[in-house]
Amino acid sequence: MVRWEPGARDRLQAAAIALFLERGYEETTVQDIAAAAGLTERTFFRHYADKREVLFGGGEAYRTGFIEGIDQAPTGSSALDLVSAGLVAGSAFFTAERRPWSRNRQRVIDANPALQEREARKRAVLADAMDAALRERGVDEVEARLVAEIGSAVFSTAFRRWLSADEERPLADIELELLDRLRALMPAGAPT
Amino acid sequence: MVRWEPGARDRLQAAAIALFLERGYEETTVQDIAAAAGLTERTFFRHYADKREVLFGGGEAYRTGFIEGIDQAPTGSSALDLVSAGLVAGSAFFTAERRPWSRNRQRVIDANPALQEREARKRAVLADAMDAALRERGVDEVEARLVAEIGSAVFSTAFRRWLSADEERPLADIELELLDRLRALMPAGAPT
Repeated sequence: MVRWEPGARDRLQAAAIALFLERGYEETTVQDIAAAAGLTERTFFRHYADKREVLFGGGEAYRTGFIEGIDQAPTGSSALDLVSAGLVAGSAFFTAERRPWSRNRQRVIDANPALQEREARKRAVLADAMDAALRERGVDEVEARLVAEIGSAVFSTAFRRWLSADEERPLADIELELLDRLRALMPAGAPT
Repeated sequence: MVRWEPGARDRLQAAAIALFLERGYEETTVQDIAAAAGLTERTFFRHYADKREVLFGGGEAYRTGFIEGIDQAPTGSSALDLVSAGLVAGSAFFTAERRPWSRNRQRVIDANPALQEREARKRAVLADAMDAALRERGVDEVEARLVAEIGSAVFSTAFRRWLSADEERPLADIELELLDRLRALMPAGAPT
């Protein structure tokens, strides 16, 4: 008989991040995590495929907002407006409640090169998804790729800022400020 | 007695890429590569730490151009001019002679998620290096990060284009065209 454990997923996540920070990611086993959460390994594997998924699960959920923002932006939006709408919609995933978790998660990733590779890939997949959404909205191929990469660059810069200890603004505010700075850096028609 | 094998590194590289394309990256062993090149495993390990390094070795060499371009740009250059100089200088690494190799290498990476993670990380490291070079040139912290990410986005978009079968322009030309497109997309002072 399988017992349903209320809040098991959250307890496993909290136990995992505490152990990753304390002993290091490589040094922590699934057995350690389950024990610290007062649960069985079997319960762990009902929620996560492996310990890496504790840090990278929910990847698709986070991308959905970006894509819906692009899909639902008003007709006639420029490519940059579309991606800007995607960034604002996508930022809703990164709530104030999520911030302490995200900060701890980043600390774990910063200490582990293999996790850094995985994180970098996550960002590339976001750019690919925004690229596809922009083409769907009729943006031509070269411009869609370029603007998706720019959107991903702005997100990544804003996200890093959002994680820093002295930053309290919501992610969307930081993204919009960066887009404004970017516009100011790029006088249209200036010589190359 | 260690025999020096003339051109061993190139032969190993050519044998490796041929095997990766033919059988798949995971299915190819160092032993296979050495045998196909007519060399010993010992010789392989004198040149590469593992088979992944055949695809990712020389990472530092490729970054040097980008950094030197930023370091040596004229006094008074804007942050965007600095990164533009970095991109043009960095593109010198990607010669016409390198293009067929780069295309085959990309095919191998596109077929393997773990290699895609590694490649994405390589790009993040380039952005970090340009960020540091920009700060060294007096660009403020937020702008340096943003412009480094934009530079990395432009490089990545241009590089993908450079690899495509129907593209024959040098990488620098593609990068400069994209920077011009980007300027045209961003009217300074336009509302957010």
